[in-house]
Amino acid sequence: MANEAIFYLNGQFVPESQAKVSVMDRGFRWGDGVYETLRTFQGKLFKLNQHLERLHGSLLYSRINLGQTMNELGTVLERVVEENARYWQANEDHEIHVVVSRGLADPTRRLGTSATVAAFVEHLDFPRFARDYVRGVPMVTPATRRTPPQSVSPKAKISGKMNHFVAQAEAQLVDPRAEALMLGLDGNVAEGTGANFLFLSQGRICVPNRRHVLGGVSMETVLELAHQLDIPWEEGDFTPHDVYTADEAFLTSTPFCLIPVISLNGVAIGAGVPGSTANHLLHAWGEMVGVDLLDQAFSFLPTEERRTLEQEARASD
Amino acid sequence: MANEAIFYLNGQFVPESQAKVSVMDRGFRWGDGVYETLRTFQGKLFKLNQHLERLHGSLLYSRINLGQTMNELGTVLERVVEENARYWQANEDHEIHVVVSRGLADPTRRLGTSATVAAFVEHLDFPRFARDYVRGVPMVTPATRRTPPQSVSPKAKISGKMNHFVAQAEAQLVDPRAEALMLGLDGNVAEGTGANFLFLSQGRICVPNRRHVLGGVSMETVLELAHQLDIPWEEGDFTPHDVYTADEAFLTSTPFCLIPVISLNGVAIGAGVPGSTANHLLHAWGEMVGVDLLDQAFSFLPTEERRTLEQEARASD
Amino acid sequence: MANEAIFYLNGQFVPESQAKVSVMDRGFRWGDGVYETLRTFQGKLFKLNQHLERLHGSLLYSRINLGQTMNELGTVLERVVEENARYWQANEDHEIHVVVSRGLADPTRRLGTSATVAAFVEHLDFPRFARDYVRGVPMVTPATRRTPPQSVSPKAKISGKMNHFVAQAEAQLVDPRAEALMLGLDGNVAEGTGANFLFLSQGRICVPNRRHVLGGVSMETVLELAHQLDIPWEEGDFTPHDVYTADEAFLTSTPFCLIPVISLNGVAIGAGVPGSTANHLLHAWGEMVGVDLLDQAFSFLPTEERRTLEQEARASD
Amino acid sequence: MANEAIFYLNGQFVPESQAKVSVMDRGFRWGDGVYETLRTFQGKLFKLNQHLERLHGSLLYSRINLGQTMNELGTVLERVVEENARYWQANEDHEIHVVVSRGLADPTRRLGTSATVAAFVEHLDFPRFARDYVRGVPMVTPATRRTPPQSVSPKAKISGKMNHFVAQAEAQLVDPRAEALMLGLDGNVAEGTGANFLFLSQGRICVPNRRHVLGGVSMETVLELAHQLDIPWEEGDFTPHDVYTADEAFLTSTPFCLIPVISLNGVAIGAGVPGSTANHLLHAWGEMVGVDLLDQAFSFLPTEERRTLEQEARASD
Amino acid sequence: MANEAIFYLNGQFVPESQAKVSVMDRGFRWGDGVYETLRTFQGKLFKLNQHLERLHGSLLYSRINLGQTMNELGTVLERVVEENARYWQANEDHEIHVVVSRGLADPTRRLGTSATVAAFVEHLDFPRFARDYVRGVPMVTPATRRTPPQSVSPKAKISGKMNHFVAQAEAQLVDPRAEALMLGLDGNVAEGTGANFLFLSQGRICVPNRRHVLGGVSMETVLELAHQLDIPWEEGDFTPHDVYTADEAFLTSTPFCLIPVISLNGVAIGAGVPGSTANHLLHAWGEMVGVDLLDQAFSFLPTEERRTLEQEARASD
Amino acid sequence: MANEAIFYLNGQFVPESQAKVSVMDRGFRWGDGVYETLRTFQGKLFKLNQHLERLHGSLLYSRINLGQTMNELGTVLERVVEENARYWQANEDHEIHVVVSRGLADPTRRLGTSATVAAFVEHLDFPRFARDYVRGVPMVTPATRRTPPQSVSPKAKISGKMNHFVAQAEAQLVDPRAEALMLGLDGNVAEGTGANFLFLSQGRICVPNRRHVLGGVSMETVLELAHQLDIPWEEGDFTPHDVYTADEAFLTSTPFCLIPVISLNGVAIGAGVPGSTANHLLHAWGEMVGVDLLDQAFSFLPTEERRTLEQEARASD
Repeated sequence: MANEAIFYLNGQFVPESQAKVSVMDRGFRWGDGVYETLRTFQGKLFKLNQHLERLHGSLLYSRINLGQTMNELGTVLERVVEENARYWQANEDHEIHVVVSRGLADPTRRLGTSATVAAFVEHLDFPRFARDYVRGVPMVTPATRRTPPQSVSPKAKISGKMNHFVAQAEAQLVDPRAEALMLGLDGNVAEGTGANFLFLSQGRICVPNRRHVLGGVSMETVLELAHQLDIPWEEGDFTPHDVYTADEAFLTSTPFCLIPVISLNGVAIGAGVPGSTANHLLHAWGEMVGVDLLDQAFSFLPTEERRTLEQEARASD
Repeated sequence: MANEAIFYLNGQFVPESQAKVSVMDRGFRWGDGVYETLRTFQGKLFKLNQHLERLHGSLLYSRINLGQTMNELGTVLERVVEENARYWQANEDHEIHVVVSRGLADPTRRLGTSATVAAFVEHLDFPRFARDYVRGVPMVTPATRRTPPQSVSPKAKISGKMNHFVAQAEAQLVDPRAEALMLGLDGNVAEGTGANFLFLSQGRICVPNRRHVLGGVSMETVLELAHQLDIPWEEGDFTPHDVYTADEAFLTSTPFCLIPVISLNGVAIGAGVPGSTANHLLHAWGEMVGVDLLDQAFSFLPTEERRTLEQEARASD
Repeated sequence: MANEAIFYLNGQFVPESQAKVSVMDRGFRWGDGVYETLRTFQGKLFKLNQHLERLHGSLLYSRINLGQTMNELGTVLERVVEENARYWQANEDHEIHVVVSRGLADPTRRLGTSATVAAFVEHLDFPRFARDYVRGVPMVTPATRRTPPQSVSPKAKISGKMNHFVAQAEAQLVDPRAEALMLGLDGNVAEGTGANFLFLSQGRICVPNRRHVLGGVSMETVLELAHQLDIPWEEGDFTPHDVYTADEAFLTSTPFCLIPVISLNGVAIGAGVPGSTANHLLHAWGEMVGVDLLDQAFSFLPTEERRTLEQEARASD
Repeated sequence: MANEAIFYLNGQFVPESQAKVSVMDRGFRWGDGVYETLRTFQGKLFKLNQHLERLHGSLLYSRINLGQTMNELGTVLERVVEENARYWQANEDHEIHVVVSRGLADPTRRLGTSATVAAFVEHLDFPRFARDYVRGVPMVTPATRRTPPQSVSPKAKISGKMNHFVAQAEAQLVDPRAEALMLGLDGNVAEGTGANFLFLSQGRICVPNRRHVLGGVSMETVLELAHQLDIPWEEGDFTPHDVYTADEAFLTSTPFCLIPVISLNGVAIGAGVPGSTANHLLHAWGEMVGVDLLDQAFSFLPTEERRTLEQEARASD
Repeated sequence: MANEAIFYLNGQFVPESQAKVSVMDRGFRWGDGVYETLRTFQGKLFKLNQHLERLHGSLLYSRINLGQTMNELGTVLERVVEENARYWQANEDHEIHVVVSRGLADPTRRLGTSATVAAFVEHLDFPRFARDYVRGVPMVTPATRRTPPQSVSPKAKISGKMNHFVAQAEAQLVDPRAEALMLGLDGNVAEGTGANFLFLSQGRICVPNRRHVLGGVSMETVLELAHQLDIPWEEGDFTPHDVYTADEAFLTSTPFCLIPVISLNGVAIGAGVPGSTANHLLHAWGEMVGVDLLDQAFSFLPTEERRTLEQEARASD
Repeated sequence: MANEAIFYLNGQFVPESQAKVSVMDRGFRWGDGVYETLRTFQGKLFKLNQHLERLHGSLLYSRINLGQTMNELGTVLERVVEENARYWQANEDHEIHVVVSRGLADPTRRLGTSATVAAFVEHLDFPRFARDYVRGVPMVTPATRRTPPQSVSPKAKISGKMNHFVAQAEAQLVDPRAEALMLGLDGNVAEGTGANFLFLSQGRICVPNRRHVLGGVSMETVLELAHQLDIPWEEGDFTPHDVYTADEAFLTSTPFCLIPVISLNGVAIGAGVPGSTANHLLHAWGEMVGVDLLDQAFSFLPTEERRTLEQEARASD
């Protein structure tokens, strides 16, 4: 097919339909790999170096040998964008994924195998982003706790995400739109299942202890923007009670940048609607990358839904 | 190729070279799957029903929909054996693996996708088994702790095994032959990285609290054999001190059945060589399945090494 | 009013409208008290002595001086039943509550105050029992954990139940009918918010470690009945995974005796309907006390609903 | 009685003797409520808004619906003061308490009941304050640990205080004057049983991690005063060893503002007598509110005891 | 001096005044050693082999090389008794201590040094035993928790006992006669500071989980005697609440065998006096070793005190 | 012997051969003591007051009565240096040790005994320091966890160091040169077995939460030097993942001041060789005390080894 997406796999650029790995790959069998998710703004990779640096840490932690330098991998990722971007619409941005597994398993079960490296683009779910920007998302604390650093480091982006998926399933029992706010073993607020969590209390952004959560590139970006907007922030050990009494809350993640959180366990946060700080930060992010994030998301909605959401957005201004 | 191995993948029996999944499969990207490992004795699957039952529990836990009944999957596994066994030597047995992932990821990140189901055979590493039966293996307690049930259930056979692989890497710093004896967060002895751990103290087999470890089919088999041999056993909370003062210890796992452990952290267990109870149990297992397990393993060794090991085995009798 | 209920309060039998305590009572201000809940069968208090013995433990733990002997209190409770039973219908049974607070607070905040002792009857919610006997209840594990023995003993029946109420609120976000299955800090299954939890696995009743939960009189009764019915039971450390793979589960509590549990976190237990063991135990309980528990509950339903439920009950037999 | 105290209860102002709740109130039965304690200086409520804000958080946490706005409740509290203050002596100040329970229990055990709201004044124990200001109090770490946030939030002012009362009983085994210094589950210093705990080390006030203790209004006041007096402070994780080696320590609480602590577990803190920083802070507090706190407390002592204490106070200056 | 006691030190039998080690010995500097305490009955060492076996475990755990066989050490201990017993009175028994340190420290801080081995006799404190047999001892749970097996194994008899001594100091703040009942990190009852703790509840002896406490030789002896007396026992996780509601409790230790416990944290256990089971067990122990333990202890009392205690003992029979 | 070293013991200055304590001393038997290690630079004690202050805290914690003032002890330590320094070479510095035990044990086991106080000098292991300065040391995280503050305060320098020695033995299984990097029970990086651990990440020195580790005098010195060199530092909760991704790491301790760490668990830190910040800090330390620390250490090497190491040092500059 003429415009089939182009994937990278083990040194080659191949059409999506050929980007396949053996079912004996340790990544498929045992989640024995690490990964990164990036996205573009105006077709360019955002903070590539920060993502590569985090990936480097994940590789050190998991003792997986990438088989190439981080710079070489960076070039690969840029080429993956380039190969696919020619088919994108003007307004479109995408996610770029890189997955590195320890490679083929053999019966001796030794760790020193040759890595499998894959990279590919994926559509961003703009219609959902549009709804979430305008309406915010409810969150729920599931019973399942975030894996502790004693067992698997939450700071390495490991391919074994069952901990997150079970938490997600529990939260969605309450509401299919709900996101899980995972707690640590000590009951402290940790993170979402694919996003960092921040909240605003008495004029300060509160950052759950970063030492036990993934060092989110988007979270760091939000803190930089907060600094520019003169919003102070502090890091600490927080519990659900702190969130119940917060003024605003938000999730940050590479695909959607920042999404407002409107409630926790059915308790409204602030007025129970997206707050002004969330909107300022989202706006500032858009200015930084030259893309109006709401506009971009709206442009992927069916006309009718777009009109409804735009009205809601204006009403809440 | 005439005798390329036959794999099962999503309803079809295909040659190994075609048994591939997309790099977008949630199993490859996020370890979002569950699995089982079985083996044959005299070409027949051992305790198929127990393995299917455990797999059923793993599927319930992870909310993955198999898309077929457990019985249908049982038939598939038997056919995988049948398709491949025709090329096996008389004396040969194999591992059979089944991996079930949640299937293809899509940008909406919903959990309700269509599962990927793969099954295939793999060679057993008989030369290593032979050495380990005769010489035993040293064990080391790594700093990394077994994932607690609060985060991911150790009783479900989840595809996210990074916890085990990091532990294995730590143990092998001491000795490339060393196996990791993982402790729980409370410091209690839990399990090996791919095997259950048992030890013998004052004439009783001690079983680390089974509520926090995988319910090993081989471990249950050993306990049944122990019952037949009038060796009592008890389950409890044990610490490394209990192992240091034990008389024997062993690992149990589907591929090798049972292997003696000769030391923990450099402290010899008993006399520091495989003990007689281990040998009795291994012998009883062989009688149960009609295969002399040592003989079978020896038959895959180069002649020279075989002779040496046989001498060692006789010497220690 | 002629048949206003008769309450006991600090040595006197008074009509309900006069059974009041000062808002300065330590029980009202700080939950500084202990309590017991009993019920009648055929108008007679069930296992009065066991309840008094547990109350005695709660008083020792909380250093509250009852100001009378346990025997005297037993006589009081029997008289409370007697005073009120004259107004009951033939078929009716009731709950009897006793609450003992440390009494009036004074500004010196000393603990050695004179206890407030209250006892009274309350209607049993038979219509709900009828629905739950027939349809079972779903359960959900909330994020909030059971208070650990280090902080407040779960074995003393303390008046400070906010831990339970927050858990209940979390579970009911999923389903207003859902009961919370609370976990301990270690992630082990503990108890419901006003009931003990048991489950049936491979023919055995599994009892969550009784050392960290309330020693339920109803739970003990179920275990005695199980013994009579030749159903073995064992006590241990269990996790949600054990419940997902169970065959049946039930809650036991004084008001309703035993109610089937049909799911946990949306995962069906067994066939997802009340099981035959639950029914046998409920039947045996009825025989023991000379009351058909289903019949009694049904008799309090509106005719229409009664017919529907009886049909459902027959269908599931 | 002409000057019986006036209480507020559920919308009405009534004499103390009529301020009673049913023994079926969930507050009395199960400590199912929240509360606040305020006091006056010169007859005016101190930091009313901060107390209302904290109460608001407690209500959110416990899912209790106050049934009126926080402002309306504020007006109620002011009126309670007004109604009672007419009978106070010139020099006198009082505690004002507000208790909000979830209201009457019914057999269906649903949480959505109509709240009981009570407010009333109480004498301050000035004679004890006088002794404690001058002599300080000894503290003891009881074995019972502060309830962890995983179970019940220590930041919500919940009516279930048995955790504190058992701790108090344990500490008073050592000395009837001793206050309990509760530790968290991790062994870190948390708080007193009705007061926050601070200590002075190397010229800095050390504040036990506020994320796991009640956000004390008095503690915040002390930190503001410290700021004015140029005494730096820091928040952190502290253990008893830090207190043994401290120079001073104090308890802060609404009724008495600040009281010096002279020892922990029999180990003298500093010189084992109230320190100068405690005295400066107490003095500064008095200046802020226009009341000499020592003088006020002394004025409630019998003449003889007053003389003795004044001598002691002068001697230690 | 003619009858100076004879000590063993590093291969030699020397008078007490010469049994000295360098202040550079690792035992003195860093508690880097292990030890055992035995006693005689009728001048003969009691259960020598069990003590040697436990010492062997302590040596394995601490990686200290004894430099002689356990049998050789046994002979040494017997000779220590023999050398000293010639000066003992007919009725007298003694403690025998063996201390093994890792030996002299050197600046390279290597672990492989040559052990220091010392053994000696010590007087038993019979007057205290007499009082404790008759009156029992109160116990107190200190805030300090028993060292967890993750850090130092409680099953090895390590020379670093500061954990115990701080606990003892805390308990003795309540009462100089009080013994500390240490809890584990999980709040479970563990052991005394130099004795095991057992209690009797509903006719069964309850044994705190032996996996986390020292495997006491005296405790094992008591369990054997209980077996002979048809008193059942069970092992489990117990909390202070279980002790408050117990019927009897006792401490077991080599020097005094068994001593009744009469209260915990001021809460009387049973009737608050030594119970009949304690007395039966003590009597049975005496029969086993041919020594009336009460008589022996009484014989070391001053006449006056002896008369008083004998009266008390008769009164309580 | 003319130049036998002079030790201090219980008020007297005696030759080394006479500095002996009874095997009945509680320090030898039960590690019942505390200690400090100091060293000289140019023959003068470094930071004597800080060491005495820390010792004072250790004595308060352990309830040991020194029997003299801290100032008197300071004079003793200076005299110990003076008595021995006359025999030292020009270039030589030494360690000075002080050990305070609770003194002689007696059968009553009371804590109020008379302390044993010993002080002495010891050679510094300069040859090892030279190798470690130039080559750095590898570190390994052992399975054994640092004793938690709940059990024994890590901030008091207690004589019971078995926790450290077992950790050391585990780490040295990997490499005889390896140092153990102990983790806390929560898996956070704590300290070495006789040294504090620091690392450099993104230009900042990271200090593991000092509240749970010994307050190292050398660590504080390094932080002061860092301040002078404009290297910022921060304290926090760190895990091994943070160390894997660090740029440099080092151990600080009184004998050697600062030693570079080149790897953790086989993962190279930075370039896997000593880093420039370590060298700058070591150089700055030398300037502060007027001793070139590398030169001093080199001067104690055999000529051949010295030449090799100097070459290595130059090569890495």
